[in-house]
Amino acid sequence: MFTQTDDLVLLVTSGGKRYLLRLQPGRQFHSHLGSIKHNDLLHLPYGTTVHSQLGHPLLLLEPSLADRITRIKRNTQIIYPKDAAMLVQRLSLRAGSRVIEAGTGSGGLTIALAWSVAPTGRVFTYEVRADHFQVARNNLEKMGLLPYVEMHLESILNGFRQTDADALALDVRTPWIFLEHAHAALRPGGFFVALVPTTNQVSELLSELEKSSFADIEVEEILLRKYKPVPNRLRPDDSMVGHTGFLISARPIIDATEPGRWLSEERKRYEARQKLEKRIAEEEAHRADSGRKYPKLP
Amino acid sequence: MFTQTDDLVLLVTSGGKRYLLRLQPGRQFHSHLGSIKHNDLLHLPYGTTVHSQLGHPLLLLEPSLADRITRIKRNTQIIYPKDAAMLVQRLSLRAGSRVIEAGTGSGGLTIALAWSVAPTGRVFTYEVRADHFQVARNNLEKMGLLPYVEMHLESILNGFRQTDADALALDVRTPWIFLEHAHAALRPGGFFVALVPTTNQVSELLSELEKSSFADIEVEEILLRKYKPVPNRLRPDDSMVGHTGFLISARPIIDATEPGRWLSEERKRYEARQKLEKRIAEEEAHRADSGRKYPKLP
Amino acid sequence: MFTQTDDLVLLVTSGGKRYLLRLQPGRQFHSHLGSIKHNDLLHLPYGTTVHSQLGHPLLLLEPSLADRITRIKRNTQIIYPKDAAMLVQRLSLRAGSRVIEAGTGSGGLTIALAWSVAPTGRVFTYEVRADHFQVARNNLEKMGLLPYVEMHLESILNGFRQTDADALALDVRTPWIFLEHAHAALRPGGFFVALVPTTNQVSELLSELEKSSFADIEVEEILLRKYKPVPNRLRPDDSMVGHTGFLISARPIIDATEPGRWLSEERKRYEARQKLEKRIAEEEAHRADSGRKYPKLP
Amino acid sequence: MFTQTDDLVLLVTSGGKRYLLRLQPGRQFHSHLGSIKHNDLLHLPYGTTVHSQLGHPLLLLEPSLADRITRIKRNTQIIYPKDAAMLVQRLSLRAGSRVIEAGTGSGGLTIALAWSVAPTGRVFTYEVRADHFQVARNNLEKMGLLPYVEMHLESILNGFRQTDADALALDVRTPWIFLEHAHAALRPGGFFVALVPTTNQVSELLSELEKSSFADIEVEEILLRKYKPVPNRLRPDDSMVGHTGFLISARPIIDATEPGRWLSEERKRYEARQKLEKRIAEEEAHRADSGRKYPKLP
Repeated sequence: MFTQTDDLVLLVTSGGKRYLLRLQPGRQFHSHLGSIKHNDLLHLPYGTTVHSQLGHPLLLLEPSLADRITRIKRNTQIIYPKDAAMLVQRLSLRAGSRVIEAGTGSGGLTIALAWSVAPTGRVFTYEVRADHFQVARNNLEKMGLLPYVEMHLESILNGFRQTDADALALDVRTPWIFLEHAHAALRPGGFFVALVPTTNQVSELLSELEKSSFADIEVEEILLRKYKPVPNRLRPDDSMVGHTGFLISARPIIDATEPGRWLSEERKRYEARQKLEKRIAEEEAHRADSGRKYPKLP
Repeated sequence: MFTQTDDLVLLVTSGGKRYLLRLQPGRQFHSHLGSIKHNDLLHLPYGTTVHSQLGHPLLLLEPSLADRITRIKRNTQIIYPKDAAMLVQRLSLRAGSRVIEAGTGSGGLTIALAWSVAPTGRVFTYEVRADHFQVARNNLEKMGLLPYVEMHLESILNGFRQTDADALALDVRTPWIFLEHAHAALRPGGFFVALVPTTNQVSELLSELEKSSFADIEVEEILLRKYKPVPNRLRPDDSMVGHTGFLISARPIIDATEPGRWLSEERKRYEARQKLEKRIAEEEAHRADSGRKYPKLP
Repeated sequence: MFTQTDDLVLLVTSGGKRYLLRLQPGRQFHSHLGSIKHNDLLHLPYGTTVHSQLGHPLLLLEPSLADRITRIKRNTQIIYPKDAAMLVQRLSLRAGSRVIEAGTGSGGLTIALAWSVAPTGRVFTYEVRADHFQVARNNLEKMGLLPYVEMHLESILNGFRQTDADALALDVRTPWIFLEHAHAALRPGGFFVALVPTTNQVSELLSELEKSSFADIEVEEILLRKYKPVPNRLRPDDSMVGHTGFLISARPIIDATEPGRWLSEERKRYEARQKLEKRIAEEEAHRADSGRKYPKLP
Repeated sequence: MFTQTDDLVLLVTSGGKRYLLRLQPGRQFHSHLGSIKHNDLLHLPYGTTVHSQLGHPLLLLEPSLADRITRIKRNTQIIYPKDAAMLVQRLSLRAGSRVIEAGTGSGGLTIALAWSVAPTGRVFTYEVRADHFQVARNNLEKMGLLPYVEMHLESILNGFRQTDADALALDVRTPWIFLEHAHAALRPGGFFVALVPTTNQVSELLSELEKSSFADIEVEEILLRKYKPVPNRLRPDDSMVGHTGFLISARPIIDATEPGRWLSEERKRYEARQKLEKRIAEEEAHRADSGRKYPKLP
């Protein structure tokens, strides 16, 4: 595979710095290690070592999906590749899937979604802030993924324009207020995931999910532990990303007549324990009032 | 979306048990909660609650990708969805990718790979044991993914039959002895990942990768922390999967004339420190011999 | 050091099972590997291998502190050694410290506390349930630590009987309702720690701590990752304890006239951000009403 | 409790900065928030808010043990409080214990050990580098813990000067070459812990421990996850310490006639599996040579 005009390529320095660029005849790449002409990068096999005019070596690579997600211009929180990878799996995306996303942010997650559903699927993404919308649009265009994305510059307070979507990802501050809209936009049995940073948001979302027509609810967190790649001194990195967010996934179901039926076992046990404790407390209060001795309660 | 004949569906009990089945008119599903006819599951929207003949509710869902990876018959180690998700991302797979895998094992990872590259891509998978090969074949057929997989019942000791592959995943005990073959099968700049359970294997693999034409080496581990989905008592699960394996990723490059140039910064620092320490030790030995007082070394 | 009558000793089987016993002439130890007379365990150096009458080897050891904490009779949640270790450090305990604990539970944490402050310090522990109280008392007696503990079978709803304590540990369900009592029992600048399992409890406790006279508030969690001790196949255990509890530590201070002064930087930043967002929302609403075009807000 | 001359005190700024100082009449404390006279800090209750001459508030606290461990002058790797806490517990230290340590480094761990065994116990610590020795000595003196420590400026290559020690901590680069010396210095059944940063060191140490007279071998790692103490936005810190070191603990035993008897179950299973695999490989080779068909091996 040889590089060609318009290819998105990665240049890696011997110090590990990574630069993403789109090859254009006549252009030039500049860095602290010197410059190099795009023309000198064209028609080369990937994996070639090239040199800046100052003689510094640069490794020419095809950018990975993680490079594409993270090496974008952005004015919002980053989406971490580890979370994007898990989210794509939780949404069971594949070529042809129709997936909705809100908010677009800088488009990092949109890139991962579009990558997974292209070329026959579509991402429908919503963003309310015009500045974010424009940044995301540019990023998607740069990555060559815009053809697979339908962008909406509008609030989702009034719902989504799509129905029967296969999957839906909410990366907003208050996902719990959009559950009815999400349910309406998804096909029955589709895939729903929300991403929030705090435990309070998880609690609020869980609380609303339980009242809505969703089942198979799961909360999880992905931790990535990197190691220093030194064969004789193998050890985890000294510092790591400690937290990015919680992933809450669920499945929209056909309205259940018996609410609470599809709650998790944990959840039901908690409910049962609550009821038992309430009964014990009442019994204890009653006995205390009566002033009589009594045997230990379970 | 309505269920139809030959669909792979999931039945979830109110206790959270999950059953995977392929709908066939005339067949019957049996569990400890009673049985239900496949006919009664046909032409229903997903997300519907059905009932066994004993009156127990069952939730009818389309299986997620994670359900498909884990709910297979197997006589080997399982691949965890968290690792499969990260591996697919590290390999930058998408519709159309050509990816090689060895060994096939029970086919769990093969399912994840085929899911990601279908319908226009291909998985080429190698397995040396006939019993595993057959189990994996049945699993892939059951999941409807066999059309996207080319299975080889043979050792990779003599190399792979493919060239110019986009990506290659090694899930074998001694990945380091196959690096030349992997390099030959991958297109320059392709994506390589190995998965091993022990730190000793990581060290051996890193050591060989450094001697081969690979760059951009990374070692990482994915930890999944699940939470009990109880809004008023949110907390991580009491027990978690403590370890599955280490992911080592790298990129095959065009032969470098200067070995070690593309080692990680960490790795180079270690080398430099080793040299410095050796020099200091020699100097200290020399000074000790000379019997003179001396100022502190750095 | 030789074993003697009344010593608490540990017998370890070649399969790794651990048994705690107090040596008494004339008694006998029984297990599935056969029995052994206490007399045959007396006056031996620790680290000796003895044999059951069936010929099975048993390793005679002095129990570690972790053995003492965990090998007790109990009808409550266990305290994990990892948490006990961190708690003891967070409370800055040492010989001579006076530390208060509530509730006693089965006495596992009490053992760790008494171990740290003996022989010149004291643990004052409160338990409201008579059955737990008795179990804990027996455990402390068995461990030989009862002389260093003052046990109270009573509720702490009306406060603690001690004042000027060096440290205080709350292992109760609703620690936030006891903060005034805790403040009254501790010497100014003493050490306070609470241990709770859920994030909701952490939030409630933090909320109350901020309104009370406490400063230097920290929330943390200890994760213990064990490895299989196999030199050629080193790897973390397949499963691990995923969660035990959150440790919240704080210092009681002399009443501050300016509430919020000693909140953490994080906390203050959050407050500031909240205020800014409120102002922006108001401004946006105002502008929306006015119907005019406006430049982007920060 | 009121501050007095010679007390070690902590000043905390409203921004969370922490300063450790020893109160001396006539001295002055300086920081970017202004200065304050030690005289103005004397005879105050801990937990008092004082003000710099520029009007900035400072919280006067007794330093915690963690403050004492980390707020020292140092020219070596830091010991983290989390590791010190677990190490002290693994060594089962208490007032009166006699514990050996090598190397002293900057004395951080020595402080934790001395704190735990004072006033009746002793720490015997060895350091080969004169510069580290002096730094550690000053730190211990500043912390008021020097009376409980016996410092040796010498190598441990020829062994330790003590025998019958209760516990021994090795914080050196090659702990495996000192196992015989450690065994000789410890009382039978005493407590041994080593702390190393890399997996290669763990493997080497395990390998030597298995050949020496040690049993009850465990490898573990402590991870500390801090949370932002914000009640309405509770979440783990964005970044965390990813790795400090591995703790390997073991117990010296009376020479066993049957080596390998006290290896862990994991270790024995590994050995057994190795043997089985070797037998299967031989059988497979034999069958392959014979050219006959054969049934599947287990």
